[in-house]
Amino acid sequence: MRSVTVMKIGGNVIDDPAALKRFLAQFAALKGPKVLVHGGGKLATQLAERLELKTQMVDGRRITDRGMLDVVTMVYAGLINKQLVAGLQAEGCNALGLSGADGNVVTARRRAPEPVDYGFVGDIERVDDALLERLLEVGLTPVFPAIMHDGRGTLLNCNADGVATALATALARRMPTDLVFCFEKRGVLRNPDDEGSVIPEITADDFAALRAEGVVSKGMLPKIEQALKAVEAGVRSVVIRSADHLDEPSGTVIRRRAAEQ
Amino acid sequence: MRSVTVMKIGGNVIDDPAALKRFLAQFAALKGPKVLVHGGGKLATQLAERLELKTQMVDGRRITDRGMLDVVTMVYAGLINKQLVAGLQAEGCNALGLSGADGNVVTARRRAPEPVDYGFVGDIERVDDALLERLLEVGLTPVFPAIMHDGRGTLLNCNADGVATALATALARRMPTDLVFCFEKRGVLRNPDDEGSVIPEITADDFAALRAEGVVSKGMLPKIEQALKAVEAGVRSVVIRSADHLDEPSGTVIRRRAAEQ
Repeated sequence: MRSVTVMKIGGNVIDDPAALKRFLAQFAALKGPKVLVHGGGKLATQLAERLELKTQMVDGRRITDRGMLDVVTMVYAGLINKQLVAGLQAEGCNALGLSGADGNVVTARRRAPEPVDYGFVGDIERVDDALLERLLEVGLTPVFPAIMHDGRGTLLNCNADGVATALATALARRMPTDLVFCFEKRGVLRNPDDEGSVIPEITADDFAALRAEGVVSKGMLPKIEQALKAVEAGVRSVVIRSADHLDEPSGTVIRRRAAEQ
Repeated sequence: MRSVTVMKIGGNVIDDPAALKRFLAQFAALKGPKVLVHGGGKLATQLAERLELKTQMVDGRRITDRGMLDVVTMVYAGLINKQLVAGLQAEGCNALGLSGADGNVVTARRRAPEPVDYGFVGDIERVDDALLERLLEVGLTPVFPAIMHDGRGTLLNCNADGVATALATALARRMPTDLVFCFEKRGVLRNPDDEGSVIPEITADDFAALRAEGVVSKGMLPKIEQALKAVEAGVRSVVIRSADHLDEPSGTVIRRRAAEQ
């Protein structure tokens, strides 16, 4: 049975033209069915500033009002998505950009307005894994911005890590699925100042121990928790790694149980 | 054999929220396979002004420099396309937004820089009619902005009328295809001041006579010429009409030969 890789990239790749070019060539060269999920980078913030949209923050999180929703839809689902798709096509990868509204492939539910109304922010509700599988079968590579819809005509800004997790979890119902989070470090580090201290594998049992020892940095905890939830839900593995040298195994692998030797 | 309708809407529908809402409900209710092509409306121009991008015009046509390409990609392929797709989904129409880069469905060639370099402006080169037919067969309704790609990583701004014509001509190789241009009038008018003077049908022979008589207004000539080219190339009919009351036959039908009674 074929397997699929769902890969998420963030602003550190998108904002750096040289890194992006390298990434697109390496991603295009990856064998087998694959899905790309991308965050936004600095462009949406810069555009909002130039349009003098007031950015409201609550508890360090941005409120997505109507103006900001239009900006992220333009930047994420328009400019960045189409640039990534055209860039992958140039590398011979048959990419297809998909917001959640396209083909009704992903619906989201607007987050409850209590205790904080984050505006047009949503959480994934349903993924059409049958449609995704059909697209993969004909050799297409779906490329997702984190813009979904509620099925009633409203677009919703979602979290790209959450989108990647939901897509991988849905695809895992159909085929072995590996989820890869690319970020600015080489993996989960035992020592945050030492890029050579990547922890090669973490299971649920390891995680409890790492947390108790205070080894893993605070910002990393929710990422690993989300990865463990994904593997609990059937995703074969989650890898946390850098976007460089995709052709080489690297980073931290998160599994339900230790890999069999 | 099933037939397909390719419909193009312009700024007069997109810029008017009430007209757009009516249009989406009526388009969604149209029976049979269909494709929507949309222009941009005023939003791209407004955004360019707010970003203080200089608009260079030559012979009344806008130059698409890098900044303007980014703006039209954001507005047409991002905001407007995703709003149309989400709006159609809410009406029960399984819409799928497609720039030319998505699935490599349409490639364009950058217009020669002589005598005028229009920048990132392209003319349609190739349409993947097999992919379009496959999408239609599974019940999807492709929704196209006029943003295509050259296959080498560059997005190109194209003319929406030209995109609709190219899509219809390509689909006509596979199934009977009707092309509909929606614009602000009810059809080709014998008297431009009288909306009741719609000419119901024009053939190539009629057109020569109408032109000789000076009956058809100057702005209408290239539209009819393009329509006649489309029917010459195999499109079953081209209708020029308003976007209102889509459920009622209306407008001017352009055919190769007079319809058989």
